[in-house]
Amino acid sequence: MTLANRSLVTIDDLSNGEILSLFSLADEMSSDMAGQYGVCRGKIMASLFFEPSTRTRLSFEAAMHRLGGNVITASDVGASSLAKGESIADTAKIIGGYADIAVIRHPWEGAAKVVADYAGIPVINAGDGGHQHPTQTLLDLYTIIKERQSIKGLKIALWGDLKYGRTTHSLIFALARFGADILFCPSPGLGVPQHIIDKLVTEYGGEVESVDDSVKKRNENLFPVDAIYTTPNSPHQLAMMPDISVQVELKGGVDALYVTRPQKERFTDKEQGDGIKYQYPVVNKKFLEAKAFRKTMVMHPLPRVDELAYDVDADERSMYFKQAARGVPVRMALLAALLGVKKTVVPLVESPALPRYPSYRHEPVPACPNPKCVSIQPTETKYLKPEYRIVKTNPLTLRCVYCEHGFEPKYVASIDWHEHRPDMKKYHSAGSHWAKDIRPENLIVFNSEEQAQAYGYKPSHFAGGHH
Amino acid sequence: MTLANRSLVTIDDLSNGEILSLFSLADEMSSDMAGQYGVCRGKIMASLFFEPSTRTRLSFEAAMHRLGGNVITASDVGASSLAKGESIADTAKIIGGYADIAVIRHPWEGAAKVVADYAGIPVINAGDGGHQHPTQTLLDLYTIIKERQSIKGLKIALWGDLKYGRTTHSLIFALARFGADILFCPSPGLGVPQHIIDKLVTEYGGEVESVDDSVKKRNENLFPVDAIYTTPNSPHQLAMMPDISVQVELKGGVDALYVTRPQKERFTDKEQGDGIKYQYPVVNKKFLEAKAFRKTMVMHPLPRVDELAYDVDADERSMYFKQAARGVPVRMALLAALLGVKKTVVPLVESPALPRYPSYRHEPVPACPNPKCVSIQPTETKYLKPEYRIVKTNPLTLRCVYCEHGFEPKYVASIDWHEHRPDMKKYHSAGSHWAKDIRPENLIVFNSEEQAQAYGYKPSHFAGGHH
Amino acid sequence: MTLANRSLVTIDDLSNGEILSLFSLADEMSSDMAGQYGVCRGKIMASLFFEPSTRTRLSFEAAMHRLGGNVITASDVGASSLAKGESIADTAKIIGGYADIAVIRHPWEGAAKVVADYAGIPVINAGDGGHQHPTQTLLDLYTIIKERQSIKGLKIALWGDLKYGRTTHSLIFALARFGADILFCPSPGLGVPQHIIDKLVTEYGGEVESVDDSVKKRNENLFPVDAIYTTPNSPHQLAMMPDISVQVELKGGVDALYVTRPQKERFTDKEQGDGIKYQYPVVNKKFLEAKAFRKTMVMHPLPRVDELAYDVDADERSMYFKQAARGVPVRMALLAALLGVKKTVVPLVESPALPRYPSYRHEPVPACPNPKCVSIQPTETKYLKPEYRIVKTNPLTLRCVYCEHGFEPKYVASIDWHEHRPDMKKYHSAGSHWAKDIRPENLIVFNSEEQAQAYGYKPSHFAGGHH
Repeated sequence: MTLANRSLVTIDDLSNGEILSLFSLADEMSSDMAGQYGVCRGKIMASLFFEPSTRTRLSFEAAMHRLGGNVITASDVGASSLAKGESIADTAKIIGGYADIAVIRHPWEGAAKVVADYAGIPVINAGDGGHQHPTQTLLDLYTIIKERQSIKGLKIALWGDLKYGRTTHSLIFALARFGADILFCPSPGLGVPQHIIDKLVTEYGGEVESVDDSVKKRNENLFPVDAIYTTPNSPHQLAMMPDISVQVELKGGVDALYVTRPQKERFTDKEQGDGIKYQYPVVNKKFLEAKAFRKTMVMHPLPRVDELAYDVDADERSMYFKQAARGVPVRMALLAALLGVKKTVVPLVESPALPRYPSYRHEPVPACPNPKCVSIQPTETKYLKPEYRIVKTNPLTLRCVYCEHGFEPKYVASIDWHEHRPDMKKYHSAGSHWAKDIRPENLIVFNSEEQAQAYGYKPSHFAGGHH
Repeated sequence: MTLANRSLVTIDDLSNGEILSLFSLADEMSSDMAGQYGVCRGKIMASLFFEPSTRTRLSFEAAMHRLGGNVITASDVGASSLAKGESIADTAKIIGGYADIAVIRHPWEGAAKVVADYAGIPVINAGDGGHQHPTQTLLDLYTIIKERQSIKGLKIALWGDLKYGRTTHSLIFALARFGADILFCPSPGLGVPQHIIDKLVTEYGGEVESVDDSVKKRNENLFPVDAIYTTPNSPHQLAMMPDISVQVELKGGVDALYVTRPQKERFTDKEQGDGIKYQYPVVNKKFLEAKAFRKTMVMHPLPRVDELAYDVDADERSMYFKQAARGVPVRMALLAALLGVKKTVVPLVESPALPRYPSYRHEPVPACPNPKCVSIQPTETKYLKPEYRIVKTNPLTLRCVYCEHGFEPKYVASIDWHEHRPDMKKYHSAGSHWAKDIRPENLIVFNSEEQAQAYGYKPSHFAGGHH
Repeated sequence: MTLANRSLVTIDDLSNGEILSLFSLADEMSSDMAGQYGVCRGKIMASLFFEPSTRTRLSFEAAMHRLGGNVITASDVGASSLAKGESIADTAKIIGGYADIAVIRHPWEGAAKVVADYAGIPVINAGDGGHQHPTQTLLDLYTIIKERQSIKGLKIALWGDLKYGRTTHSLIFALARFGADILFCPSPGLGVPQHIIDKLVTEYGGEVESVDDSVKKRNENLFPVDAIYTTPNSPHQLAMMPDISVQVELKGGVDALYVTRPQKERFTDKEQGDGIKYQYPVVNKKFLEAKAFRKTMVMHPLPRVDELAYDVDADERSMYFKQAARGVPVRMALLAALLGVKKTVVPLVESPALPRYPSYRHEPVPACPNPKCVSIQPTETKYLKPEYRIVKTNPLTLRCVYCEHGFEPKYVASIDWHEHRPDMKKYHSAGSHWAKDIRPENLIVFNSEEQAQAYGYKPSHFAGGHH
């Protein structure tokens, strides 16, 4: 399938082969930068940044200019201009009438999908809240491949704020797809959100094993591995002998240490206040003297604060400025491919097929419980209906199509239980064994018994403990 | 007269023929967008937005880029950078040394005229306070003509905030000039300002008839027409039989319903607080089921808030996204014409000649009473003298050349009353019969008796009730 | 030496010949503006404004566009986006991976040097705090030369805020180098900083003579000259007969009056409050009637506030809008030269060689006492070490290489005093006669006796009065 006229909202939108084809194009471009001027002659890229981001915005704009294209920019779209109260869909439709491609950053999770749904032109997600930042992932992968030729079988340690760092969220799935093992080394309290772990295991296979506390302690001097993800193809020894396995894992050395800063701007008030303290080892020259890091690529999406010392800058293992610089040819390749002005050749590589989950179809449609989800914002509910995929039955889990947060409803019913017999409308607890057998196309969910009863349902014997 | 090197400050700056010639050029451009790249090669457009406006700004910038021109943008020119206290004239002169054409949006009414007066390059008004927004009017007219071939004889309903909506202010005059009938349907308390009604009747001819309250009531189910403007050529039945006439007007159906949002950012504190509530019918699918709307174009300058429902979007009568998209070729045509890089061919159409009013010439020159007028702002009074045209003698009315607000002075004198006899300097009340006979070139006005006396005048017998 | 790939941080970075070669290129460019389009085809200029500056930013961007180059802009880099806490060096390295040349304005003094040190691409200082603004100086010099053919022997009066006006700081050195005499006419309390006077005398030679108060009084009607700088080649009569000499100076007329606005945004709280009142003669038509101003060029870097009246605008002596307009070809020449796409031919002119001062080499390295110096900002101290040149021995003065502020340490020691005899480590007062004989490569300085003692030094007999 050609990349022309498609959008990039999450990293799932690209197969492994498509990603590699973009990297070939990026190689071609960086080998003759001057020769690309004119490739996007006459094309207009709209650069829409609803959150301040000089770095990413300028990278995209430089990429478009290197291609000889034009740029219209809205980087000042703060609260002030939104005061007029326009919806994202309206903005998207308008921009679709002005530009040939749009790049969007927005604080609401799922906002990029809305733009892609309504703009009528290719849209690139440049970061939507804590959700995804797929082009950062592309340049991360590109850097790994440039330095190591392949991702398969590499051991990549993710370091720091794995809770709010959207760059790691996109990266985790991509690494899994390309067959890397992942060592999770979160700062205390900033571990990977469970819905991401769940998606990782159920969709990409492989295993995530927590490291035993005693092992952690012994390992502390080296570095604090919290959990390890091994791809389906890796030898699986972790469950049985965690201690040795961690040693084994680390013995071969870590291929990349992906450091991230604490995303303080996304911390909850509690986390800001007393909660999380980023009392974590600083990655510096001394830290990197450990044997496991002898050949480790030190990566960082930047900006850094204090987690990565300046004394690493001159070290040949440091990759972070190379990452940033490589963002330009990668984004050039992406822009040219989506605009259809450059053909990409997709190599024959295996790309794990992502499961296609059934949609949730019936009333009532619950509101997404993620307060940052685009689907529940007052300007958007005027036209946007929440949508869910049923990604798990035990426990029953719906996933929002916008922000991809998982959501476990409390009560369920099935259309076929009461077909033609409206007086028989009953609801069960979502945890009851009956619930598991409901066919997705028949599923009805409720957030509360009150809601179920408001819809005319009566509690069954399986509706909960207090009946 | 060629359009090259001219400015567009108000819609009056273009004749009907010139407007149509721009539309021909816009047609030419939209039929071959790619072919226009290079038309403005090497030209620079300065995009100066002293008020946030992503939509209009990006539309102009996209237009310039489609022509292959360059753009320099100041969209961050808020209070902060104005802290240095530069006048608009100085900014204009500087920009005139950098760019080939300038687009300006500013909160002060008349600001675009000042830029045009001082920049030495063509200037386009992209909205100056509540005054005008002529390029919005151009794309509105262009949309009507594309859909209906001609404006003459159409019935256009203006809906919503007709008090602060500058887009409707420019549009009203243009519709009158092109021979449309206008149905005014303001939200309660947000009717068209009187000075616009006055200008409409005195300069464009035709009649504005208020609709009788009883008629309004009967019509309420359909829609709340407040007043009707009929062009000089329309059969004039309104004065005699308001009820029937409204029925007649509506019977033929409304050609366009031009919906506007409440411009809350311009509301006075009182209006914000208790005053105006936008408790107005929402234009939605249901509303549009009325027979009068069967073929109605639903227009909106956007952004919308709640006045226009999303369920109209998919309706073929909805024009608002088309309007926005057509803004690009219309602005391309305008830029190319004013820069003199494209010739326009002005068709032979009638364009009502606007009256040329005499200037007010003598001291004292009153300050414009409009608090948003550019001519009274502290940074501007250093170099800017208020200027007025005498547009009416009964009641005596001066119109500010900047913001076009009308102004009725309280006291008057005439130069010829006291020529060579300074002891005879007398002033009259502006309402006295003597006042009406003063020749414009002799007129002197005073805001108060104190002012008149400070200038050495004494009250005549016609100076007011208390003499 | 070619200008290609060099940076312009202070006006000292360019020799007189190089400046003149840029002016020849600017002439060439302004004589055929349209012909320059394409000179910078495919090149990207990053426009990084950490302080609001519409004027200078748009001038650079217009220049780049006139050359057919591309621009990426960050004009919104205020406190908000710096909240992520990125250092200037990191920003510089990132931008160096995106663009071919960078233009930077920043509130911290010395920030442009940091960007130039780390970006890996040519960097142009567009104003760093109160330090320098060298391209403003270039266009000022260009204007003087266009109007007077040569700068040598001209009498230039600097008027207004000579304390905070960075434009005059760059200009003073350039005028001295080109052989002009300078009349300092500061507003009360806003005189030229002493470190600039010092640098002027010690590095450029010539003399700065204060004008006697009685002379000032007599001259008051004309204008308040505070001090006069005469170049080494000028007849030096000032020290002997100040009164007559001022008369003589003024008799020939002033060639240029360089007016500046009070830089209120840089005033200290005290200056803001009661301190400085800008109760200074306004330069207006009447003021310029004095004989000394008959042929005076009236210059101003703009924006103006109240110090320069609008009634001068139409006068043929007024140069300020010409200055601004000439900024475009001058910046075009500079961009093209630094990018290496245009060769410059350096004429054979004398350019005073600037002294090369020895570096301060030992621990402890004092922090720069200038609170606005980049080298002491928390985000920068992580990687930036203060650096000093020893520019004077009596009194001993170190100059910060970043902000160029001078700094007189209190206590000193010399490496050779205690070589191999650590128990002999003694410190002296910097004012003692021993101090003057310390060889620069041996110098150690301390801010306080406490600091000296903390480093293991003991007070000598020459350590101060209280020993």
